[in-house]
Amino acid sequence: MTVYEKLRELKITLPEPTAPVAAFVPTVLAGNLLYVSGHIAKRAGKSWAGQWGSDLLTEEGRQAARNAGIDLLGTLHQALGDLSRVKRIVKLLCFVNSASCFTEQHLVANGASELLQEVFGLAGAHPRSAIGVAQLPMGSCVEVELVAEIQS
Amino acid sequence: MTVYEKLRELKITLPEPTAPVAAFVPTVLAGNLLYVSGHIAKRAGKSWAGQWGSDLLTEEGRQAARNAGIDLLGTLHQALGDLSRVKRIVKLLCFVNSASCFTEQHLVANGASELLQEVFGLAGAHPRSAIGVAQLPMGSCVEVELVAEIQS
Amino acid sequence: MTVYEKLRELKITLPEPTAPVAAFVPTVLAGNLLYVSGHIAKRAGKSWAGQWGSDLLTEEGRQAARNAGIDLLGTLHQALGDLSRVKRIVKLLCFVNSASCFTEQHLVANGASELLQEVFGLAGAHPRSAIGVAQLPMGSCVEVELVAEIQS
Repeated sequence: MTVYEKLRELKITLPEPTAPVAAFVPTVLAGNLLYVSGHIAKRAGKSWAGQWGSDLLTEEGRQAARNAGIDLLGTLHQALGDLSRVKRIVKLLCFVNSASCFTEQHLVANGASELLQEVFGLAGAHPRSAIGVAQLPMGSCVEVELVAEIQS
Repeated sequence: MTVYEKLRELKITLPEPTAPVAAFVPTVLAGNLLYVSGHIAKRAGKSWAGQWGSDLLTEEGRQAARNAGIDLLGTLHQALGDLSRVKRIVKLLCFVNSASCFTEQHLVANGASELLQEVFGLAGAHPRSAIGVAQLPMGSCVEVELVAEIQS
Repeated sequence: MTVYEKLRELKITLPEPTAPVAAFVPTVLAGNLLYVSGHIAKRAGKSWAGQWGSDLLTEEGRQAARNAGIDLLGTLHQALGDLSRVKRIVKLLCFVNSASCFTEQHLVANGASELLQEVFGLAGAHPRSAIGVAQLPMGSCVEVELVAEIQS
């Protein structure tokens, strides 16, 4: 099954990437490594705002991080032309908007990590850090950045 | 126009890099990738202390992050001998000292991102994440780290 | 002196790495770069919970970050089979669980940085960022991730 067949099976439609809201670019390829900007979680096209430990439930986290992951896939597709050029997801860094009392950042981040493994299989399994941040751009509840290795 | 002519035009004098205050080194080159330590924002040679949402205005952020960026350029110059060896700025990670109510980390981070594009042109355009952190070493208001690809 | 002789001299026993608690893997090798997941500080096999500025003393930080570093060494050993395959520690990112008043993240992070230099010598000296985060998975007081260059 190709990556695109898998996306259809999961009923995922890749978004048309939107331009960064600030002075940066979505991706840069250096050698075989594609560096991808942090993508905030969105819902209905807007920043999914909120903070765990304040006004969000842990259960919402998996979906929020999954949404950020879907947008990352859209950016990868646009940058590479073909997602099958992804050899391996090399690293994820997940920033989880957290009040000081919230200690389940890893469960939130799973939403992005599981998506990448569903879509890419073993090539989607990656090392990761998940951390609780004080706040994020546009109040977003989660932001995810990644590095991918591209077929040479 | 060379990078150094551009720096003169922008009236930027590269600082003499100071030694890290802790047990690390400024840069390491691995293959063609130069990894650079996080640089805190300074003013008049000292940590520019403060936190957005508490005691700083968003407008100050661009200058603070620009100052960190200038120090990064000084470190790149020292590590490489010649800034024209920078092929591409590959990745920025911007840590913005934020109270929980501040949601404009991207505007603060622009100070560093814009500087790199002014100095390096297209080679300075980079992917980026900007996040709100609870606090930074020496109370600094912003810290920026980067990865650069070097001409082989 | 080999890396393993050095570990014996330092009376460090490498832990048996435990499986990640969430949907990720400990390491991925891309080209010559080994990306390693964030490792939280543990004590007696459990998350070393706490936050600086709230309930921990700075002096405890060096040991906590050192513990995370020892676990990272265990993961490197498992991934590579032989720690002498590490050519250079390329980058560290240290997340320090911090109340807003704590500004000595760099002193905490030194615990991991110094360990790597004790064990690997010059090959262990690395660029680094140390930042104060709002909270970490399982309430851990510190989390450290790294990138290492491997002998080709």
